[in-house]
Amino acid sequence: MKSIILASTSTTHGGTYLSYLMKQLEKLFSSTNEIVFIPYARPNGMSHEQYTQIAQDAFDPIKKRIVGLHTFNDPIDAIKNAQGIFTGGGNTFLLVSQLYKYDLMHILRDAVLGGTPYLGTSAGSNICGITMGTTNDMPIVYPPSFKTLGLVPFNINPHYLDPDPNSKHMGETRETRIKEYQTQNSIPVVGLREGSWIRVKGDSTFLRGPHSARVFEQGKEPEEVPSGSLLNEIK
Amino acid sequence: MKSIILASTSTTHGGTYLSYLMKQLEKLFSSTNEIVFIPYARPNGMSHEQYTQIAQDAFDPIKKRIVGLHTFNDPIDAIKNAQGIFTGGGNTFLLVSQLYKYDLMHILRDAVLGGTPYLGTSAGSNICGITMGTTNDMPIVYPPSFKTLGLVPFNINPHYLDPDPNSKHMGETRETRIKEYQTQNSIPVVGLREGSWIRVKGDSTFLRGPHSARVFEQGKEPEEVPSGSLLNEIK
Repeated sequence: MKSIILASTSTTHGGTYLSYLMKQLEKLFSSTNEIVFIPYARPNGMSHEQYTQIAQDAFDPIKKRIVGLHTFNDPIDAIKNAQGIFTGGGNTFLLVSQLYKYDLMHILRDAVLGGTPYLGTSAGSNICGITMGTTNDMPIVYPPSFKTLGLVPFNINPHYLDPDPNSKHMGETRETRIKEYQTQNSIPVVGLREGSWIRVKGDSTFLRGPHSARVFEQGKEPEEVPSGSLLNEIK
Repeated sequence: MKSIILASTSTTHGGTYLSYLMKQLEKLFSSTNEIVFIPYARPNGMSHEQYTQIAQDAFDPIKKRIVGLHTFNDPIDAIKNAQGIFTGGGNTFLLVSQLYKYDLMHILRDAVLGGTPYLGTSAGSNICGITMGTTNDMPIVYPPSFKTLGLVPFNINPHYLDPDPNSKHMGETRETRIKEYQTQNSIPVVGLREGSWIRVKGDSTFLRGPHSARVFEQGKEPEEVPSGSLLNEIK
């Protein structure tokens, strides 16, 4: 049975890494003391070692051992045998490129479909959509494809941000960008605000956390979906 | 002799399309009454026709005829024979995909190197860098390459935005994103603020307009370069 948490962000304003989510993570990973961490997205270009240590520090209070995927000789085997998996945020283009490089995309998908508990934050959530086409990140490397895990039947826009009515900046708003995406693609998009997350349990997909999500379906006006909603009907 | 204006934005806050730049455009396009407009970036998903009309309206006061590239049977020939070229902003992934689709990338490069006056705004400026790797846009389509025109020896980040010290949003700042880019690439990046532009005349490349630019070189602290500076030394 699938058991997944897809968080908009690892850290909320004023909090520490994953602190706002720790109660849910204790439940998600209740069956294991060891979690394989995928550090490939490298926020701020930090090393895999540094990033894994940040994850370890966050999980110390609930006594989970974090093992960086970069420490295994055979990452495919590591994912297949993992009792829990966490993909951290950073740059989605880099993360997706590395997953393809090590031929991990379908292995990771199979593991999570087979029931390995999975946590994603930001880029680590983005890759659970059908494609990475609604990432906010810069295209710092060229991945072999934008196709991702498809563990939910829509795309995710993490760190979803409402337009600032006082802004004098002329760059596109997030909503404009997502609507541009849907001029070229029919895939629905869930704009996930910081502090909220998507919880998948078997065949049910719920929105959790303090905020509503903004759901974009091609050819329709965007809709505010309240926290607690079942997201299964988005497709 | 190359003659190029690369603007951060088409429109500044409170202005109309290209209004802040019209004096410079009158000089740039002084030798022609007809400009070929490349509408492929389609901001807000608008049609090529709609977008070309917006450009025409902007150029009416200086009596230039705007002809959309989409109206030619042979776009390669149209670029080769153009007396002036303007590429509008929108989505860089879409723009680059279309330029590759019609085999226009090298044709456009040759035309501008050969002296055809060129205006780019936003995505239309971004494509004059070495790659599109520092665009702000969403990857709404998958282009065959991120390589672009290389008409300047650096990459451009249009709509450059300074971090907001009061923001509670946890998404990356623009500076963080560009630094992440340079963990993977050695290409310098010019962060071009809205209202400023790059002016290339032959072998000289100047920063123009009201703002300094923020210049990022790999392994160095970012530097503020004042308007009026020669940018030739960035490489």
